[in-house]
Amino acid sequence: MTATYTLTVRYAETDAQKIVHHSNYLVWFEEGRSVLLRQAGTPYTDIEAAGYNVVVAGAELRYRTPARYADEVQIETVLVEARPRLLVFAYRALLCDGRLLAEGKTKHMILDAELKPVALPKAFLAPLQQAVQG
Amino acid sequence: MTATYTLTVRYAETDAQKIVHHSNYLVWFEEGRSVLLRQAGTPYTDIEAAGYNVVVAGAELRYRTPARYADEVQIETVLVEARPRLLVFAYRALLCDGRLLAEGKTKHMILDAELKPVALPKAFLAPLQQAVQG
Amino acid sequence: MTATYTLTVRYAETDAQKIVHHSNYLVWFEEGRSVLLRQAGTPYTDIEAAGYNVVVAGAELRYRTPARYADEVQIETVLVEARPRLLVFAYRALLCDGRLLAEGKTKHMILDAELKPVALPKAFLAPLQQAVQG
Amino acid sequence: MTATYTLTVRYAETDAQKIVHHSNYLVWFEEGRSVLLRQAGTPYTDIEAAGYNVVVAGAELRYRTPARYADEVQIETVLVEARPRLLVFAYRALLCDGRLLAEGKTKHMILDAELKPVALPKAFLAPLQQAVQG
Repeated sequence: MTATYTLTVRYAETDAQKIVHHSNYLVWFEEGRSVLLRQAGTPYTDIEAAGYNVVVAGAELRYRTPARYADEVQIETVLVEARPRLLVFAYRALLCDGRLLAEGKTKHMILDAELKPVALPKAFLAPLQQAVQG
Repeated sequence: MTATYTLTVRYAETDAQKIVHHSNYLVWFEEGRSVLLRQAGTPYTDIEAAGYNVVVAGAELRYRTPARYADEVQIETVLVEARPRLLVFAYRALLCDGRLLAEGKTKHMILDAELKPVALPKAFLAPLQQAVQG
Repeated sequence: MTATYTLTVRYAETDAQKIVHHSNYLVWFEEGRSVLLRQAGTPYTDIEAAGYNVVVAGAELRYRTPARYADEVQIETVLVEARPRLLVFAYRALLCDGRLLAEGKTKHMILDAELKPVALPKAFLAPLQQAVQG
Repeated sequence: MTATYTLTVRYAETDAQKIVHHSNYLVWFEEGRSVLLRQAGTPYTDIEAAGYNVVVAGAELRYRTPARYADEVQIETVLVEARPRLLVFAYRALLCDGRLLAEGKTKHMILDAELKPVALPKAFLAPLQQAVQG
């Protein structure tokens, strides 16, 4: 399953280099995850309502082409790995002409309400394992 | 009591106009409030730990001079009004040479843990009323 | 002319009060302006390419209901005033059930490439004056 | 040379998990770079004034402990590699009690005013090569 999140670059997302500030890709990738979790039938609001936090443990980003204000950007997200205590997502940010802006990967741990590591319960894990893409 | 918060403009706070994005003043003013609340002996962490949320109900901003990356900025904050259900703060953002960057005012309501309006208890309100400046 | 900008609240836009941080409304209102300028036939990219900056001189915000992660939000923008050296926009942020989240107004000056005040040329001003709504 | 940048976590930097949103570390690391470049005698404002952009080509982050509102955070930055067309920085974010919050690395290319890859001139590169730490 590839989840697609589409956005138009906001003026506030640019910086004095007149390009998108590199930190925004983490925000966009997070919304890519939101879309994928929703499509997989495990929206993040449900995971949180059940008392779990999916927190970022690691991130890697490679920036290829700068994006600019008003650009249409597509975030493609895939779930690469889904284990009880580890989720791994991969992302590509593309312009509508197909040019690659950036790509990345994030690793996530599951924490309980007190922010202690815990395993994601079956009800959430099973649909995610279905959604995994090699 | 005037609380002073000093910051150096971050690159991420600029936009493609090569000046500070105007939304950052709300963030800086909020930190001005943080400093004032700490100085008044009612740090916001204590207010939250007691189950109260001070939420923004209104804001006014006037922008005078654009700030740029690496500028040293001073935020001066005063508490203008402190009533059980309403706090009003006023702010000035200045460059170190005294030039006025922006000024503003924010109004705040007190909400409980369920985000219902409530009065701020005496223990928090009394020191704030002491800190009010006309 | 009322311009409509629709967004889904991003996780990064929330804060520890579990609601949308109030500074994001300035960012959303700015995108509302972007949509309106595009609809009026004077996209902001064209204004900038011609050497003009439309900068924020003032802003007023009233917050009515907190928004949360994953909420669908609609920003309605109208141009209230369009003079050679002053543009005034008004905004409403609504949930899809019609509940008002926030409303506001921003005033803008026109600056040239050296950030000196200047009048907006006829080619940009005329279509904006057409778009003004009382 | 290790550059130290100290900050207090802003409320706006938290998210609904009540911890610092992970994207802020890229912003903080960028300010760590700013401090290092200033200490090395090549402030980024000078590099930009000379017509060069140092843009982020890649980033890696490992998150160890969540930070919270009002935490005092120290960013330690070292320059790991300084070649005409590649700069590599490494970072650690620490609480004042020494606990590691996050660590990371960023790679940078040099672009000219038209955003074409270019070599950093000797006047900027030489002091940076002096500042490199293994």
